[in-house]
Amino acid sequence: MNLAVIESDPGATTVGVTTGNRFCGAPVLLARERLPAGKIRAIVVNNKVANVASGTGLHDARTVAAALARERSLPEEQTLSVSTGVIGWSLPTERMVAALRGISDTAAEAVDVAEAIMTTDRYPKLAWNRRSGVTCLGIAKGAGMIEPNLATMLGFIMCDAQVDRDRLERVFRRVVAATFNTISVDGDQSTSDMVVCTANGVSGMEVSEGELEELLLPVCRTLSQEIVRNGEGTAHVIEVHVRGVTDRELSQRIGRHVVNSPLVKTAVYGNDPNVGRILAAAGDALDTWDTGHTVDVEALTVSIAGREVYRDGAFRLDGTVEEELAELLQRGAMDPQRAGYPQDVPNVTIQLSFGSSGAETVVYGSDLSYDYVRENADYRT
Amino acid sequence: MNLAVIESDPGATTVGVTTGNRFCGAPVLLARERLPAGKIRAIVVNNKVANVASGTGLHDARTVAAALARERSLPEEQTLSVSTGVIGWSLPTERMVAALRGISDTAAEAVDVAEAIMTTDRYPKLAWNRRSGVTCLGIAKGAGMIEPNLATMLGFIMCDAQVDRDRLERVFRRVVAATFNTISVDGDQSTSDMVVCTANGVSGMEVSEGELEELLLPVCRTLSQEIVRNGEGTAHVIEVHVRGVTDRELSQRIGRHVVNSPLVKTAVYGNDPNVGRILAAAGDALDTWDTGHTVDVEALTVSIAGREVYRDGAFRLDGTVEEELAELLQRGAMDPQRAGYPQDVPNVTIQLSFGSSGAETVVYGSDLSYDYVRENADYRT
Repeated sequence: MNLAVIESDPGATTVGVTTGNRFCGAPVLLARERLPAGKIRAIVVNNKVANVASGTGLHDARTVAAALARERSLPEEQTLSVSTGVIGWSLPTERMVAALRGISDTAAEAVDVAEAIMTTDRYPKLAWNRRSGVTCLGIAKGAGMIEPNLATMLGFIMCDAQVDRDRLERVFRRVVAATFNTISVDGDQSTSDMVVCTANGVSGMEVSEGELEELLLPVCRTLSQEIVRNGEGTAHVIEVHVRGVTDRELSQRIGRHVVNSPLVKTAVYGNDPNVGRILAAAGDALDTWDTGHTVDVEALTVSIAGREVYRDGAFRLDGTVEEELAELLQRGAMDPQRAGYPQDVPNVTIQLSFGSSGAETVVYGSDLSYDYVRENADYRT
Repeated sequence: MNLAVIESDPGATTVGVTTGNRFCGAPVLLARERLPAGKIRAIVVNNKVANVASGTGLHDARTVAAALARERSLPEEQTLSVSTGVIGWSLPTERMVAALRGISDTAAEAVDVAEAIMTTDRYPKLAWNRRSGVTCLGIAKGAGMIEPNLATMLGFIMCDAQVDRDRLERVFRRVVAATFNTISVDGDQSTSDMVVCTANGVSGMEVSEGELEELLLPVCRTLSQEIVRNGEGTAHVIEVHVRGVTDRELSQRIGRHVVNSPLVKTAVYGNDPNVGRILAAAGDALDTWDTGHTVDVEALTVSIAGREVYRDGAFRLDGTVEEELAELLQRGAMDPQRAGYPQDVPNVTIQLSFGSSGAETVVYGSDLSYDYVRENADYRT
């Protein structure tokens, strides 16, 4: 097990977003208690044990956070204990408290922290951005496809802007909705997902909401896409764009249903531009979520990698286009020789357009490969 | 391509249930037009081509049905043309009409019809029941896991009871809700799913609603479970029971979410009694569907194969129980040497109980194996 500590300067403002999963872990419960004040100064993060459903979870999380508070001379309520790993096990609190005793004042490299919080991740994920005199650095963990017991998503976003809690919260929620909340790998949110953002104000620069959003957005977008890309089983990252659906939530649900469809996922893995499966998944999503029949199915056009393949109720696809698309999909596949490293390959884009109303929504997911099954069917003792 | 014709005696009453998928095929549109009158006498069924999204689908379905009507001297509106196969292709109507010319008056064996309507199914599926002097015979196709372009579920249930249309419709809808609508393999309903029930009255026996239900239920239950079991990639059939949720639809949604979770599916494939994944899937389902927080998550107990593994917010699982369950899962796996034949192996049962209120709901699904990926990632040209 690794322990990593993230500590902010005094005066830091911290906000966060936690999982909606109803069986959430003790770290999430503690965070929900302490985040609203906006004053979190220090966070201890461990891997290996998720501290979910152990029976003594909340007590254990408090114990570890209290030890951190003592060491760093902070009020307890300004600390968090955050965990990811196997569900059902108890934190080894005594050994964690002992390890926290006399932790160094020397800051670690961000990449080392990003590596320390990894579970089954294949590489550390960090991203940064600088604009309007302020800097943002973010690290994240989450292996996307593999072993959900360990694959919880955690993100820690740190910036030096001067910003009050309410503004930071408003902007961060918008950014998370457009980034971390648009990735969908196994279709389930984990019991422990948590993304936290701290602004310590040391730049002395006050920023507008727009500037803050433009600062945070690219960092969170990069991190969330890397979470999808770094799953060991992932051969393609799939992007589903939905247009022409006025209700944003419905639009996103259609995209999620398509990107989570095992049949669409296996088709993309096999480099098959399978229009029928995309249609079937979209039609099923509409049956479930569009009970008022607000979406005009007859207006639907579908494109794969920018090529129109369905319009006016019929396929627009001949052998030549199909072959070209299959080649494109193959070229967009990741190099298994380089598994474990970030790979700069294009995403497979599927676009569904039901008309011109409403904004476009995008969701990101991964394909479904043999490796996914191998990773997830391994018997864990 | 095979053509099969199912024809009833005069005076037959026919009802049916069709897919809710919003991109439904032409055969579904035609059936929705003609089923309400309750008078369907003859159905022609083809495999290979689904007649979905071809552009001329409804016209083609009418043409084929009209040819059948001519040959059998029936009014056109008493016939259906039902198709499953690849989406996006057009029916070869000329050749189908030619093939229907002069079809034999000699009845085929039911098993031959069950075989003729197969696509990627591994074996023909039929079931029968007899009680209170009436007989019911059903055939079905649907390969569950593999190739959704071809894996649509079709069911044809035939009985000789004397029953009026409204009573037959009421009972059949209840039976379908408890059988065909409780199986969930890829998580998507297809564009062409259809189940039809005919009562021809030749037994001369009038039956009560209760008797009719007891006649039809075992036939539909057997057929729907065989659809799950006969998928080539299926190594285990998973049964999820949910208790203590008053809202029946919510109860079923929780069950479906668990049985469709790729992480639960891969765990079962790997003979891993993974409680954490079951919890995570249930918690995510509740976040999506139980927005009013009506379900008491703290009351949850979870059992796998009858053994309690979670209660009072904590795992009830030690190394011994885990090993026993792993062995049970392994013994319940199908014999790959016998793939292609019905296999009488026990289902893996997962039980979630949130209390004692409400009826129990059950859903059936399959695990997620290498073979599933292989079958579905194969490039179709």
